[in-house]
Amino acid sequence: MLKVDGFSASAVSADIRKNGGGRLDLGLIVADKVATTAAVFTRNAVVAPPVDICRERVGRKGSARAVLVNSGNANCMTLFRGREDALRLSDKVAKLLDIPEELVLPCSTGVIGERLPIDRMEAALDPLVRELSPEGLELFSQAILTTDTVTKTAVQEVTLKIGKVRVVGIAKGAGMIAPDMATMLGFILTDAGVSRYDLSQVLADAVADTFNSITIDGDMSTNDTVILMASGRGPAVKKSDDLEAFGEAVHTVCAALADMIVADGEGAAKVVNVRVTGAVDNEEAKKASRGIAESLLVKTAFAAADPNWGRIAAAAGYSGAAVDMEKISLSIGKVKVLEDGEIVKGYDEAEAVKVMKRDRYEITLAIGDGEGEAVMKTCDLTEEYVRINSEYRT
Amino acid sequence: MLKVDGFSASAVSADIRKNGGGRLDLGLIVADKVATTAAVFTRNAVVAPPVDICRERVGRKGSARAVLVNSGNANCMTLFRGREDALRLSDKVAKLLDIPEELVLPCSTGVIGERLPIDRMEAALDPLVRELSPEGLELFSQAILTTDTVTKTAVQEVTLKIGKVRVVGIAKGAGMIAPDMATMLGFILTDAGVSRYDLSQVLADAVADTFNSITIDGDMSTNDTVILMASGRGPAVKKSDDLEAFGEAVHTVCAALADMIVADGEGAAKVVNVRVTGAVDNEEAKKASRGIAESLLVKTAFAAADPNWGRIAAAAGYSGAAVDMEKISLSIGKVKVLEDGEIVKGYDEAEAVKVMKRDRYEITLAIGDGEGEAVMKTCDLTEEYVRINSEYRT
Repeated sequence: MLKVDGFSASAVSADIRKNGGGRLDLGLIVADKVATTAAVFTRNAVVAPPVDICRERVGRKGSARAVLVNSGNANCMTLFRGREDALRLSDKVAKLLDIPEELVLPCSTGVIGERLPIDRMEAALDPLVRELSPEGLELFSQAILTTDTVTKTAVQEVTLKIGKVRVVGIAKGAGMIAPDMATMLGFILTDAGVSRYDLSQVLADAVADTFNSITIDGDMSTNDTVILMASGRGPAVKKSDDLEAFGEAVHTVCAALADMIVADGEGAAKVVNVRVTGAVDNEEAKKASRGIAESLLVKTAFAAADPNWGRIAAAAGYSGAAVDMEKISLSIGKVKVLEDGEIVKGYDEAEAVKVMKRDRYEITLAIGDGEGEAVMKTCDLTEEYVRINSEYRT
Repeated sequence: MLKVDGFSASAVSADIRKNGGGRLDLGLIVADKVATTAAVFTRNAVVAPPVDICRERVGRKGSARAVLVNSGNANCMTLFRGREDALRLSDKVAKLLDIPEELVLPCSTGVIGERLPIDRMEAALDPLVRELSPEGLELFSQAILTTDTVTKTAVQEVTLKIGKVRVVGIAKGAGMIAPDMATMLGFILTDAGVSRYDLSQVLADAVADTFNSITIDGDMSTNDTVILMASGRGPAVKKSDDLEAFGEAVHTVCAALADMIVADGEGAAKVVNVRVTGAVDNEEAKKASRGIAESLLVKTAFAAADPNWGRIAAAAGYSGAAVDMEKISLSIGKVKVLEDGEIVKGYDEAEAVKVMKRDRYEITLAIGDGEGEAVMKTCDLTEEYVRINSEYRT
């Protein structure tokens, strides 16, 4: 069950999309009391007003009471009017909940450049607040979707010395996905009591190699937001080993959600872990793994289950990472393809094809004999992706 | 007529491709005498042995007599054996032509990771040399193609104070095209007499905003090479205004070839100039124009003739360039879409769609009020691109 002590949620349709047909598109999460809150955002220079507002509010307070999310419209490139719209909506929610408006965090996802249908949305806030219930997260997870084909949720329970703690994550995202996040929203809720400082640290650590290590199309969004709220209704996490276990749980939830986002990548049929080893350092390894994970030629080869290792090596080569050609080794799944820059004796391409026909697999490319290592999760690029994105608005 | 004083050329089939069916795949250009030569290469860290050999030879001598090019196999990731193969072939050509082997420049393009079919190729060198003729450049331009659907040639004649000078360019490339070149080969021949130093300068200047300002898929190749050879059979270009006119002619030829490459982009139906203005400096403008030109979401919107300006602004935003959202202006062709971050009054989307249905158009995005400006030439991303690259090897 998608529940966390101290939180309730709801979702309604505000008919935000032109032909939405009553699709859920407005969601609300409310904490019973002020919740310690951490958040991370897109690093895009073109950023939507709701992101600015969240950044200001979380930055100032490190706490929140409510998250108001709409899909179908990103409220981006809407300048001061977009900001006014977001403020007006969060203001009204605050009034209905009788809480300070700075404790409401607005998030939007969808088409860029159109103003929110503010009247329809405002009218929907009353029912939205009325519908709030501890069981509402399930509907909430539906309301935030755009081109996603499935809801994305993950739950972890950890038994600490001080008692049991629960972490629930809900996310959306299927396109415009690139490191430093994407058109992705993530909401992580926990009943644990955690200090503001610890919560920020836990979230930053978790995001680095989960949400910030996935790519679908290399397009970083204007609205990416991940919010972590701790209600404190459960045990207070203070000791360092409890904190570590709690951090692990948050990490696991983020990793599961990140994986679901890639698996639901627009038109994607496969999830591929691109692991780079032997780099000078982790930074260099990340450069190379990102280069490979974003290469159109590599991603189309993934789609074709074609072990075209030349494209993989070439992408590492132009990534900016130092590559020692005579030390290049490559495995596709467990099938060794290259060793020290050469095809492995007895390499059977049919075996590599077999791996690449799976839904999920890992490729490992060594680019030298250094200690640096990084993994990037990507998907294949199919004609379907192009179809979806040539038709999105029309 | 594709001729230049002082050069002859030829092409034959060496059956390099598995099912090539007698397709021309081996080409040769020979200068009657030692020709002053300049060249630029890929900056990929994974680089094919023939590129290394050309780099060494042109670097050492600044001159050459012959260029030997094969398509169908990039001779890349073939380590020292690939180097031996390339040396063996250029050595044999040198013997047949009775010239020093360091004056032969080998180039390869095609699939990565397979050894050249060296016996078939060696057997083809005799007929290749026998076929040499001043009219041979036409056939040569066919022999170097891979996934290209058309040959790419351009001719300029300039009348300098000292007489008439001719510049002929021949190129190939349709995929793996990104700044710092691509799987592209370019051969520029002139009858002018030009010093080694001037020739290098002219080529570097010409390449910067032609071959290095185009992108098809963002994949930089391992084999990119552009070679400029001056036979000196025509007038010697020395005076600065003659040199300028000559440089202009080389630039025009490179620009025409670069344009043809993008127009022939795999699956592409449209050529779009992405101009960015108002940046802090040209470097920043280039970052933003490259971000836009390589965005999958922008390129699929181009395919759909969808004036989805939010994707354009978002791509500029994540490019790393400084963007002032309140100063963003956008035109699609002559249709003004945004001014100071807002939709222009009276903007008619149908007019923008009309522009985007053309084969060629320019979009101009201002990202601030600086002086920096840059143009990147790109194409649309279609299902056909994905189809071609999911089937290339199989």
